[in-house]
This record gives sequence, structure tokens and C-alpha cells, in this order.
Amino acid sequence: MADDALVIFTPSGKRGRFAHGTPILTAARQLGVDLDSVCGGRGICSKCQVSPGVGEFPKHGVTVSPEALSAWNSVEQRYKDKRGMLDGRRLGCQAQVMGDVVVDVPPESQLHRQVVRKAASARVVEMDPATRLYFVEVAEPDMHEPSGDLERLANALREQWEIPRVEAGPTILRKLQPVLRKGKFQITVALYRDHTGISRILDVWPGLYEGALCGIAFDLGSTTIAAHLSDLRDGSVIASGGIMNPQIRFGEDLMSRVSYSMMNPGGDIEMTKAVREAINTLSLNVAEEAGIDPLAIMETVIVCNPVMHHLFMGIDPVELGQAPFALATSSSLSLPASEVDLTAINPEARLYILPCIAGHVGADAAAVALSEAPQLSDDLVLIVDVGTNAEILLGNKTRVLACSSPTGPAFEGAQISSGQRAAPGAIEHLEIDPKTKEPRFKVIGCDIWSNEEGFAEATASTGVTGICGSGIIEAVAEMRMAGLVDPAGLIGGPEQTGTPRSRAAGRTHEYLVYDGSAQNGPVITVTQGDIRAIQLAKAALYAGARLLMDEFGTETVDRVVLAGAFGAHISPKHAMVLGMIPDCPLENVTSAGNAAGTGARLALCNVGARAGVEKQVGQIHKVETAIEPKFQQHFVNASAIPNAVEGFPHLLKVVHLPDVSHNTAGSESGTRRRRKR
Amino acid sequence: MADDALVIFTPSGKRGRFAHGTPILTAARQLGVDLDSVCGGRGICSKCQVSPGVGEFPKHGVTVSPEALSAWNSVEQRYKDKRGMLDGRRLGCQAQVMGDVVVDVPPESQLHRQVVRKAASARVVEMDPATRLYFVEVAEPDMHEPSGDLERLANALREQWEIPRVEAGPTILRKLQPVLRKGKFQITVALYRDHTGISRILDVWPGLYEGALCGIAFDLGSTTIAAHLSDLRDGSVIASGGIMNPQIRFGEDLMSRVSYSMMNPGGDIEMTKAVREAINTLSLNVAEEAGIDPLAIMETVIVCNPVMHHLFMGIDPVELGQAPFALATSSSLSLPASEVDLTAINPEARLYILPCIAGHVGADAAAVALSEAPQLSDDLVLIVDVGTNAEILLGNKTRVLACSSPTGPAFEGAQISSGQRAAPGAIEHLEIDPKTKEPRFKVIGCDIWSNEEGFAEATASTGVTGICGSGIIEAVAEMRMAGLVDPAGLIGGPEQTGTPRSRAAGRTHEYLVYDGSAQNGPVITVTQGDIRAIQLAKAALYAGARLLMDEFGTETVDRVVLAGAFGAHISPKHAMVLGMIPDCPLENVTSAGNAAGTGARLALCNVGARAGVEKQVGQIHKVETAIEPKFQQHFVNASAIPNAVEGFPHLLKVVHLPDVSHNTAGSESGTRRRRKR
Repeated sequence: MADDALVIFTPSGKRGRFAHGTPILTAARQLGVDLDSVCGGRGICSKCQVSPGVGEFPKHGVTVSPEALSAWNSVEQRYKDKRGMLDGRRLGCQAQVMGDVVVDVPPESQLHRQVVRKAASARVVEMDPATRLYFVEVAEPDMHEPSGDLERLANALREQWEIPRVEAGPTILRKLQPVLRKGKFQITVALYRDHTGISRILDVWPGLYEGALCGIAFDLGSTTIAAHLSDLRDGSVIASGGIMNPQIRFGEDLMSRVSYSMMNPGGDIEMTKAVREAINTLSLNVAEEAGIDPLAIMETVIVCNPVMHHLFMGIDPVELGQAPFALATSSSLSLPASEVDLTAINPEARLYILPCIAGHVGADAAAVALSEAPQLSDDLVLIVDVGTNAEILLGNKTRVLACSSPTGPAFEGAQISSGQRAAPGAIEHLEIDPKTKEPRFKVIGCDIWSNEEGFAEATASTGVTGICGSGIIEAVAEMRMAGLVDPAGLIGGPEQTGTPRSRAAGRTHEYLVYDGSAQNGPVITVTQGDIRAIQLAKAALYAGARLLMDEFGTETVDRVVLAGAFGAHISPKHAMVLGMIPDCPLENVTSAGNAAGTGARLALCNVGARAGVEKQVGQIHKVETAIEPKFQQHFVNASAIPNAVEGFPHLLKVVHLPDVSHNTAGSESGTRRRRKR
Repeated sequence: MADDALVIFTPSGKRGRFAHGTPILTAARQLGVDLDSVCGGRGICSKCQVSPGVGEFPKHGVTVSPEALSAWNSVEQRYKDKRGMLDGRRLGCQAQVMGDVVVDVPPESQLHRQVVRKAASARVVEMDPATRLYFVEVAEPDMHEPSGDLERLANALREQWEIPRVEAGPTILRKLQPVLRKGKFQITVALYRDHTGISRILDVWPGLYEGALCGIAFDLGSTTIAAHLSDLRDGSVIASGGIMNPQIRFGEDLMSRVSYSMMNPGGDIEMTKAVREAINTLSLNVAEEAGIDPLAIMETVIVCNPVMHHLFMGIDPVELGQAPFALATSSSLSLPASEVDLTAINPEARLYILPCIAGHVGADAAAVALSEAPQLSDDLVLIVDVGTNAEILLGNKTRVLACSSPTGPAFEGAQISSGQRAAPGAIEHLEIDPKTKEPRFKVIGCDIWSNEEGFAEATASTGVTGICGSGIIEAVAEMRMAGLVDPAGLIGGPEQTGTPRSRAAGRTHEYLVYDGSAQNGPVITVTQGDIRAIQLAKAALYAGARLLMDEFGTETVDRVVLAGAFGAHISPKHAMVLGMIPDCPLENVTSAGNAAGTGARLALCNVGARAGVEKQVGQIHKVETAIEPKFQQHFVNASAIPNAVEGFPHLLKVVHLPDVSHNTAGSESGTRRRRKR
């Protein structure tokens, strides 16, 4: 009988021969099989659980006898009694190879579990967090060979985990001695090791620490701050939350906050303080929701636009308000979270902020790029993150371009006469019958169309309160498709459109969507002013995309990705009727959801993603819209619906856009339109 | 005529040929000549001033014509008009080589000026500080090539100063944009680069910064904290100051502070707060004395014993109070000073703390080792830093040993009946006539002996107030030499000694040094209790030294260095009569002054010294006195004056020690002495 045996690991398929008596964990490590362990094979953490198979494995050409592994032992029994363990499972550090064997590593025993599977790009992102737990046995102090406890801990990490060097701040120095003695010189260390070479102890616990180990990915927007609390061991999101950005009291949009800082000495300091406090509050909120100690939060990642970035970091954003829009720093930042007053979490917690692409294209755009990976795309993809400021990326494997465009808040329902935030009661979908010109709509919180039975009852509690951002896009697009609005954006009068819903409002017309006055509700119309606001916003967005296409040397894109929470709710057809996005096959317009938030989570869970996005951002070519003369021309062209000069052939295959004109000589709108041409 | 010329630099003697038109600064750099420049050759900092010679230089074999350098130019004239410049001086960046020339680099233009010349070890320590100023021209922001101001500054440092990478904290990020714009993108950077690879911007100023750039070396003692404020450009000490360690209110000596921490939960935190506040106060005091802005203080270095080290760092010192005396950390520490609340100085200032050698042998001993460099000594040197705790080093080129010994505060005048701190009026020198047994003495603040004319007048303002540490050593030694005290330490009575100054005091005797009662002054005596206190202290010191000699395998040492402020005042002869230090030729006993403070200054001014002391400490073998059985035997032997078993042959060549015994059967002291034997 041979004194070694074949060990085959699944699902990896890795195999090798090992001497009888070799622990499965040792075999896995030598083969580079992804098998977790916090205690380093001491039989106390149970992270290395495996499922050995027995019987015939024709695929692998082996037969596994029931004696292929050493017998179930007392260490395993003790663990099973104390914590429970699935039948058939073994501890990889206890079970020893005694014959040919096939060993399955279940997902929860894999260190590099998948954290995000990106269907579109076929990319799998695995857990490879900067912060991990290490159980170590530290040598006890010896008067004859005096050395510090920290130095002996560093030795233990080097010898037991091959970690070459570590540093520790005053917080850890203060904790270390009592923790070592409480744990009888066996302790668990939370160690942060990132792609920049930092290797720093964040926390220490006596014995084997089995509590939470978390990080938070923040999407710091001008209006709201979103947080995803993730388990740093498996990448799962264990709580999410949001909070209003308290800087709103200093100004609704970015430029008004920059102005506030310029007009009020120390104003930036107020805004910095406000946003840091909000992030602390939000951290406590999500920790409470998840039922974890905030001290278990070891890492934070923030994505945000450049103005938010500077205000958060305590940098006066004044330079971002004027050409040449110079950032104080464009690189990623990796620093102790306490340096920027994030005091609600572990005092040694780290903060990583993704790099900015340019003065108008921030870490949020970098996060979108990280999540969507346009640089890996075979076809030419346009990625649009719609918000008060739209970030636009265009590229493929050859190169990637980026710009931002100031769309204003119209897409979020602001500046729209009946506009409102997306909330129950808001119209989010709308259709207009091209014959009768009658509308029907759906409101948030109810899945019944307004012309269907039961609508009134179903919406009794919320009412019909206004139109949200995606609703106004559909409304304007439907009005254009129904001939109520002409390519120039003019709403026709009742004679021109044949419906009394097109009614006079001052010197222009408006379209009546819903009259709730009988129920003491609102009268919801789309006014000429609303059309103009949407035209300005969508023209800015399109002009930015078109500018990137010019720079890329293309007239068409293969596909469009709508990113951002708002992007997820936009109807691709209606967006294209409006001319918000370039013409392409409708089925090639997809939503990526909150891509910036996903990018933040990737950076939180995978240090390689940090190195990757830093490299990626360096290779993105930035186009500054504010100074590009062609931007103005594209903007003027794109003010028409869908566009004054571009054909939108793919769109016209599936949608009819009536060739109407509601211009009447002498009307205010008509005059303006002639001036534009 | 050749189109190149010979350039010879003095005092280095470096020489090379350079093309006509080469600036002297360029030639110096290419030859590795030590010529300073902050502005990088832009003619604005004037640090590169040189003195060219004219005429015959037979030693160098050249004749220098008056046209050997390009003509005095407008940049030099402008600088001279504005700031003044010695006649004959040129700016190295402006004066160009036009013919063979001899150029002297005056000391103030040398970057690596000598900071400390160690006569004993023939070592010269040069300026090589971690923090230096760099003047840079930063590229202006460009919308078409967006990058952060920090990234462009980093580029400038790389291109103009070959500094590969820098980091900057939030403080600098906040300042950078306004400073760059105020300086029209020409700024001065204070950059910290140490031996650990840290490269961090500490401050930025618009244009050329010509203000102060300082660091403080702190000697943090149990009783007092001393500070030396040094110019980081030339190493000069520009102000010194001291302050009482406010921890004294928690306990006079180290062990009482450890006890305070053990008995009072949170007591260590109180003591940490107190010492940090004191260091802040002292920082402000020395800055004020020097007339500099405390923000100009960029670096601090601290040396201290392990208990002070832990209490300063915020680590509970409880482990240092009990075997095995485990340090929380023994390595050197390099961290932002703000992390330990040193907030009175520049917010980005750095702190370096020298490594500890062992739980009883701290960073102060490491600093002594750095300053005295026993590892470079050809002969065997014993270095003794006398204080409440004595640190002792023994070694030569082959190896170095260290220990500490708990001498107690007797050498500082505490526990002595007439003892006092070294202050005007304190007896610091004392002689006893071996025939008449009459004393004479000198007090601090007066250079006249007490038996000389004018003494009363000269000391009228201070009086004669007590005996300081060095005074008590001389008093006991003189009493032994005069036969007033026997080898066992017993003071004889008037009959035994033949002088009424030996008078009864209870069951023992005392020696009357000074009777000021007629002038309402003190009666100063040396009591049997005083002798016992000194015996205990000196025996502990000697036993530590002897233990190291055992470990080294030697019966003798070649020389003795007395370190510490107190060491500077000890008379070698009297110390040896007491048996404080081992026998050796008296002329080989020298004082090193405040060697720990010197070591701190070296570490402040030279990063190589930091790397050096870290390596050195790793090679020092530590001997723990507390557990060594032979320590007890050496201690008992050394309780005799000078020693019960050792001969002190070198001492006996120059000093007569009467063979007396004042033991009378039944006396308390005699009984005790017999028990010891």
C-alpha cells in the first residue's frame, strides 16, 4: 500500500498526492485551494469545514473508501457539540488524508467567495477584503530575552501567517497588553493590509473572536447619503440605510454650496462638519439595524462627486466652482477614518475614497467605471449616470472617455410644475392614446392603470399627488408621440391637437393629465415650462454623450447603460423618444441600478478592485464639456425632440413620431425657436 | 583654449572638469559636494553661497584668474541689496565656470553641517534631518489634462528634487490650494522623509519660505522634563527649557506611579494627560523663548525610561511593575505628534521615540548608547547614567551589555537628612582634613571655600542650605578617607575619631558639617542614616555594573563614563572611594554630560542616527538584575566602602583609606553588619 494518497478538491478540480496523515487544510494550502481558516489549523474556528465524498467518482477516476480520511476526532466532536455542524462535514485541519479522497469545499468555507457577479460583463468579483482576522499564539514575555508584546505579536504573525510586518497605533498599544493576558497569549487580530503596502492592526481580542467584522460603503450624494453595511468575511450586505445630506440647508445643488462657501468665510467648515456628522449618524443607524456593535465596523469606502469629496475631506471647494476646476487631489485616499472625524465606528477604522477622474467627474463616476468596466467591453458602450449632474462614460477595450454634464434637477422632478420626488402617489408611468389623446397612468405604490377598475380604491390612501422624474420623461415622450408636442417642444392648442386637454395657460398651452379638484386633489398638468425644463436637461445630457462620441470618432454606440437609482426607473423607449440618449437598438439599453454604490461595495470587499480602479481612472480620457465649442452646437441640436439634425433610425423602426408643428407666427415660443435656428 | 575647466572644492578637495558655463551648484551636485540649496538653483534662497579664490594655489596646482567665474550678475546684486551678502561671496547657482577655479564652501552653506562632535569617540555627527524645505514650481491646472493640485505638486517634487512619492494629510489638502494660488504656483514644502520610508508633506508656504524650521528633543524624566529646541537646518540649539513632570503628584518615583495606576482605575489616563499637557506647555515655553511660531516646530524626539514611555504613549504601565517586566512595545515609534495630543506645535508635526532596550532599560538608555557609542570603543567602557534608576552599559567593539539598577533617589539628595536639590546654597563640594577632621566646603553659586576669606559675604544672599547629591557623595567619601567612617559604613564616636564633630545622635553618631544656628540657619550633619542610604544606592549601582562585568567575563574596565546631568557633577575620585564605580585609573573616569539629551538631539538632527540606534539596540544584550542571584552577592559586597571583597588597586595608589573599625559589640549597626557577613 502506498504511503501517500491522491486528494482531489472540488469545485476547483485541483489535485495532488500527499503523505498519509496530512491534514486536508495543509493539502489545500499547498495546492492553493481556496479554503478559509482564521485559527490557522488549531481546530477552533471551524472556518475550514469540508464535505468529503465516499464511493465512485468516475469523472475523477477514483474510488473513495470510508476510511479515506482519519476518524472523526474529539476536537471535531467538541466543536459540533458547542456550535453545531452539518452532518457529513469535517474540519479540514483535523481530518487527515489516509487514502484517495474527493473533498468538496462548500461556498461558506471559501475565503474568496463571490461578492458581486456582473452579468453584463461576465465578471465575477471575489472577496479579497483589506481587513481579515488572524488567530495567533504569541510567545510569552521572557525577562532573559526582553522584547515588547507588540514585537512578539509581530513575530507570531510572521511565523504563523507569513505577514512580514505590521504597525499599530496608540489605541492598539493601549489595548494589547490586557488583551494578550486575558487570552492567555492567544488572540485574534483584525489586520488591515491594502494595495498601498499598509499593514496595520485595527483591533485585537482575547482568544478566538467570532463577532462581527464589517465595513460600510457610502454613496455620498448631494441630496442623499446611502450606506450599505457589509460583512467583510462573506461580502453580504447586512443592512442598508439612507439619510438626507444635511448640506442641503446650505444649497440645493453643488454650485449653490460652492457659492455658499465663497460668500461665507468658514462656510465650507460648516458643511464639512454637517456631512461628517450625518455619516456618523448613518453609521450608527445601519449598525443598529444590523444589530452589531459599531466598533465592529473596520472599514469605510466613500464614493461621491468632487464637490462632495472636497467638502467631506475638509477642503474648500471654491476651485471647483470656476475654470480650470482644479481638484486639490485627484488620487484615491486611504487614511484613518478618525482623521476625518468618523468617530462612531472603530477608532482604528480605515477610510478609502476612490479617485476622482476630473474636477467635474468624481469618485462616483470612478465607481461606475469600476462596476461597469467599460474598458473590458468588446462593443462600444455608453454609460450614463443620471442625476443633478450626469456622469457619462463612453468606451470599449480600446479606450474609455468620460465627461460630466450639468443636467440640473429636472429629471428628479424639481423645476417641474407638478413635479415631486419618487414617493407613493407620484405618477411614474404614463401613456397617451395617439388617437383619442387621452392619458392613462400608474402611480408609485399601485400596479393598476388609472383607466382600469379598482384604481380609485387602490390609490385612495396615497391619492395622485404629482409626477416624479421617470413619469415626466414618459409624459413628455408620450406627448411627442401623440402629436401634442412638436419637434421644437411646443404644446399645441386644442384646435391643433384636437383635444380639450391641450388648453391655454397664459400665452402658452398645457396638457391636463389629471384633475383631482373634485376630490380636493391636485390638478396635474404638463406645462410649456415643464417641456422647456426637460428639453434643457435632456439636451445637456445628450450633448455630453455626443461630445464623447465625437472624441471617440463614432456616430453610433452599440449599447447604452443607464446607471443610478433614477436610471433604473427610466423607460428606454421614452428616453430615446426624448433624445436623452443616442439612437441604438432599444433592447441594447439596460439599467445597471446603482452602479456607483456597487463600485463602492466592490472597493470595500476587494483590494484588487482598488488597485484596479486607480489604474483604470488613470487611463480614462477626460473631456471637459464647459469649454468645448461643439458642446454648444450639440446642445442646440438636442433641444429638439428627439433631435434637430440626427435621425434616430433604430427608434423610428419601433415608434411613430408625427411630423407636426404647433408654431404660429408671433407666438412667444415660435419666435424663440426661429432665433435658435 | 579648452572649453572646459578644472573646478576644485574646498574643504572637501573634490575636483572635476566642467564645460564653461556650468553653474558652480551644478558642478557641486555632480561631484557630490555638500552645497545647500532650497530653491533648486533659482537664485532666490541664497543657501548655495560660495567663496571663490583667486591667484596661486600651489597645493592644488592651479592658478585662478579673476575671470575664472562668470561676472557678478543682477540676480546676485538683487539678493545682496535685499538681504546682504559677505564681500567675496557668490551664489553657486549663478556663478558659472569660465576657467580653472578653487571654490570654498563655507560651513553655513553645507547641508550636512556638523551637529555634534563627539570628542571621546572621535565621531562627527552631521545634519541629516528628516524634515527639509524644498522650493518647487508646480504646473498650473489644465482643464484638458485634469489632475489634482497635490498630484502636480508630487510631480514637481519628483522632477525638480527627485523625490519619488509623497503623501499628505487632510491638513495639507485643506491648505494646498490657497497656498499654491497665493504663491503663483511657486511654493516651499516642508517634507518629512525618514528611515522607515515615510515621505509626508508637513507644511506648505507660498513662495520661498524663509522662516524658522525647528524640532524639539525632549528628555522626559520622572522628575523633570527637559527640552532643547533645535534649528532643523543647522542643528543649533536655539532655546532650552525645563518643567517639572506633573506626574510627581501621583508618585515621586516610577514604582509609586505604577502603583497609582494599579490602585486607581483610570489613573494611568490621568498621568498620560498630565505629562502630555506638560510637554505642550514646555513646547510653547521654548518657542516663546526662541521667538518662533510654535507652528514652525515640525518634529519632536522623546527619550525616557520605560514607565515614562508607556505613560506618555497612553499605555497602562502595570506590566512594568512586575516580572517579567513586559513592554507593550520595545521598538522605536514614529507617528504623528497629534496622535498623542501634542497639539501646541505644527498639526502635522512628527514624533520619534527611541527604542527601549528592555522593561527596565528604556529609550533614555538607548539615547545614551547612541550618544556614547560603546559599540565603537576599542577599550572596554562602562557607561553609567545616574538617576533614580541607573542605566548601565558595558562594552566595546565586540559586544555591549546593558542593565538598570534601582538606586533610589539618594543620589539626588532625597532621603538624606540635610539633602536638597542642586540649587544655590547647597553644598556641592566638601573636603575633610585627615588630621584635624575639620571640613571645608563650597556651595552652589559661590567659588570660595568655606574656610577662605569672603565666604560669608559671598554666600550671604543664598546662605548654606543643605547638601546636594554630588555633595553627599563627596562628604561620605571624605569621611571614609578621614577615618570618620569605617569600611562597614559606621560613623565613629568622638573618642574613636578624635573630633567633637563626630557626635552622638540617638544610638548612632553623626558628623557635623556646618552649624548655622547662630545665623538662624540650618545645622547640617551627615547622619548614620544618610550613610546607610548612600550605601544602598551605591551598592545597587555597583552591583549592576559588576553583574555586567561578570557577564562580559572581565574583572576590570578600561574606562568609566558618567552620564546624566548629575553624572557631570560627580567627582570621580570620591565616587570611586565610595565604590560606586569599579576601580580603574582615575583619569579614565570622564563625564559625558547629559548623554541621553545628546542622543535625543542626534536622533532629531540625523535620520541615520535613528536607523543606527535601532540596529544598535537590537545588538545590545540585556541583563535583568532583579532575577540574577549574583546581583544580591555583589550588592552585599558593595555595601562596604568601597567594597568588602574587591581591592581597588588603582584607587589605593592615589588615596589612603584608613583601616579603621568603629564597630562596638551590641551597637545596632554592628549587629546588622555581622548578620550581613
